[in-house]
Amino acid sequence: MSAYGYSGRLARLLERLGIEPGDKVRVRKGGRVLEGIVMPSYGSGEVLVIKLGNGYNVGVEVEEGSIEKVGRAERGPPGSPVPLLEKVEVGEGRVFVLGCGGTVASRVDYETGAVRPYLTAEELALSSPEMLRYARIEAKQLLSILSEDMKPRLWEEIVRETAKAIEGGYDGIVIAHGTDTMSYTAAALSFAFHKGLPVPIAMTGAQRSSDRPSSDASFNLVAATLVAAKAPFAEVSVVMHGESGDTYALAHRGVRVRKMHSSRRDAFRSVNARPLAKVWPYEGKIELVEREFRRRGGELVVENGFEERVALIKHFPGMIAEVIEALLDKGFRGLVIEGTGLGHVSSDAIAALERAREMGVPVVVSTQTIFGRVNLNVYSTGRRMLAAGAIPVEDMLAEVAYVKLSWALARTRELQEVRRIMTTNLAGEISYFHGMELFPVSPNA
Amino acid sequence: MSAYGYSGRLARLLERLGIEPGDKVRVRKGGRVLEGIVMPSYGSGEVLVIKLGNGYNVGVEVEEGSIEKVGRAERGPPGSPVPLLEKVEVGEGRVFVLGCGGTVASRVDYETGAVRPYLTAEELALSSPEMLRYARIEAKQLLSILSEDMKPRLWEEIVRETAKAIEGGYDGIVIAHGTDTMSYTAAALSFAFHKGLPVPIAMTGAQRSSDRPSSDASFNLVAATLVAAKAPFAEVSVVMHGESGDTYALAHRGVRVRKMHSSRRDAFRSVNARPLAKVWPYEGKIELVEREFRRRGGELVVENGFEERVALIKHFPGMIAEVIEALLDKGFRGLVIEGTGLGHVSSDAIAALERAREMGVPVVVSTQTIFGRVNLNVYSTGRRMLAAGAIPVEDMLAEVAYVKLSWALARTRELQEVRRIMTTNLAGEISYFHGMELFPVSPNA
Repeated sequence: MSAYGYSGRLARLLERLGIEPGDKVRVRKGGRVLEGIVMPSYGSGEVLVIKLGNGYNVGVEVEEGSIEKVGRAERGPPGSPVPLLEKVEVGEGRVFVLGCGGTVASRVDYETGAVRPYLTAEELALSSPEMLRYARIEAKQLLSILSEDMKPRLWEEIVRETAKAIEGGYDGIVIAHGTDTMSYTAAALSFAFHKGLPVPIAMTGAQRSSDRPSSDASFNLVAATLVAAKAPFAEVSVVMHGESGDTYALAHRGVRVRKMHSSRRDAFRSVNARPLAKVWPYEGKIELVEREFRRRGGELVVENGFEERVALIKHFPGMIAEVIEALLDKGFRGLVIEGTGLGHVSSDAIAALERAREMGVPVVVSTQTIFGRVNLNVYSTGRRMLAAGAIPVEDMLAEVAYVKLSWALARTRELQEVRRIMTTNLAGEISYFHGMELFPVSPNA
Repeated sequence: MSAYGYSGRLARLLERLGIEPGDKVRVRKGGRVLEGIVMPSYGSGEVLVIKLGNGYNVGVEVEEGSIEKVGRAERGPPGSPVPLLEKVEVGEGRVFVLGCGGTVASRVDYETGAVRPYLTAEELALSSPEMLRYARIEAKQLLSILSEDMKPRLWEEIVRETAKAIEGGYDGIVIAHGTDTMSYTAAALSFAFHKGLPVPIAMTGAQRSSDRPSSDASFNLVAATLVAAKAPFAEVSVVMHGESGDTYALAHRGVRVRKMHSSRRDAFRSVNARPLAKVWPYEGKIELVEREFRRRGGELVVENGFEERVALIKHFPGMIAEVIEALLDKGFRGLVIEGTGLGHVSSDAIAALERAREMGVPVVVSTQTIFGRVNLNVYSTGRRMLAAGAIPVEDMLAEVAYVKLSWALARTRELQEVRRIMTTNLAGEISYFHGMELFPVSPNA
């Protein structure tokens, strides 16, 4: 690939015509005439990307004779830091942005209509120049994957790169990540760094891709940068829209957050806990909601490593025993079950729990109600589950229990030690009491 | 068992001493003296149950010489309808109460501390005399199981008994059920009766057992009876506390409700829909929230039958492909996957979806965010899933999709027909639009 990401025939054509990103061009294509500013390429480099007058970027295949340069843009194109640095007073902090894929770094492919990852981390960082108000930005695109392709092996890469960045002396780290699995990765980072984290790690993403007018990418990136640069808490947090408008974001604790809506901007919600803070990205304001948190400073301590052969399953009224048996047969080394209500499985599944124990496979129990906590001491089924070795995890989210079990099994296979880790609060994932007011209010109720 | 449920040695002792439920007795036990009213037995019949002055029931083993009768109660004991009928003006309606187990019909076993099912349906009905204000009550205890032991085979029994009761000409049916799996059974009834239901079926239960001072059993039973007797909608609903106090209940549509908290009285919430109505059980008031509903009347049409070899699984960032493979190997005939966000699975799981299709196993896709809807047309992964035969089900809850798939597979194994059933709205489980205001408001957000 040549500079600006264009390649092959297109790169040679642009070079011959003296066209660079930032230049204004006119393209004739199938009877239509498009005018716009040439953008840096994303994707294959074989399609010219131009920003139209309406602000949309389009990808267009150009041929010899179909394109002409009609003017040089006064400022450099997005992706070129110079003009941005001229118009924004750069903050004193230093923030490192680690790009891990997802919609926050995606574009609509106008050829196919699908959404694909695209930006380099620099483009990502500089797409939201307001970030620079709070810090100088350095960036690296670590992964270019869709959110649903996140895996424990990739958590390890993210932990490694994040640790490296923290050692670089930054005031905070922003991790741009797909929203679908962001809370899982947030939990993974929370456990990996629970023994020592000197600066904030603010994860963020976008529910709508950054070339749509309704995109939340920029707002969230700026809010996360503010948290990374200025927040008093050295915690792994997820920083996303707090309500559907562009007013404030919420910084949720990484082990207490869940994506609760498929598409709303304010889909991320703290569960069984208050958020850490409200964040007004354009006003530069952080208002603490939670008063107990880890402060900045101290040493970085990394405990990396995640066992992949762990499954998260959900109880349902039917053949759940067969599901557990099938996973034991398949060689899974740990199971997290979202039980019913207080954490129950059906009576006929208890034999499968006993078999798991005999095989040395820990079975961790959370609840599918999401809110509230498990308690296996109330009903006879719960007591039988305890006798069969089930490990109830209080008010820990099932998804967090899954990540924690994966992390625990990379440290030890000894059942008693796994139990000790799972039932000990390490990063705020367990609390033994929380107020009634933490249950959200439904409409018409 | 003798009358009042006592049996064996204890029954003979009580008979010899002329002690019957309602009598006041004094029991000496291990140096303590207990005084209270003899209650009807529940459980084995070998432990005497007495109601103490503080309102609690205790179970106590009595022996010859350790018990004496100290007075005859003025009124009959709870469980004897006569005094209740004297003090309550009985409503004109006729409601049938079907007992299906769960906490609403449970007691704490004071011997072991565990909670166990106990009441007969008559005892259940008459434990809450306010029910009689709205209807004469007839009752049957169909199942005496814990909620987590509910199965598709038992849904069939409940459908059968409910249909029989409806044919008996009642104004409505109350189903007392464990709360943990109540929403699944509500969905099962919704599909079985979607073609014709002349009267309301109001399911209810209790989050705290009925011999605890904080029990919600009575409030919920009265509210459900009011709905069964008087509501204008002939719908399957779940009628439970609307907020934590004893003010109003909510009637949720059976295919739109979810238990969202492990222990709160107001744990049940409508998802992606408004509740059908607010219900004030002691004021006798029903306030409609939803204006579109099936009205009373018409013929009863029953489509019973549920396939048991269906699984509900949840996507997680890890070896989800292996989970799907394991269930295909195990002979499951249908899968519902709670995908990420808009309904995605990881790219490496798409081959497993293709294998499912080759095996004739439908794979239905919902979302683990709970709120919102799936859309497999936005991202490339979704399109690949569609190409592999995945069946997205709009804004249908995953649990409801599981029940519906079980029901659909009992009608047909033909993939195209399963797809048609799953993507057609039958009982209000799918809507193509709903307002933003349906997302609950979190505290501090």
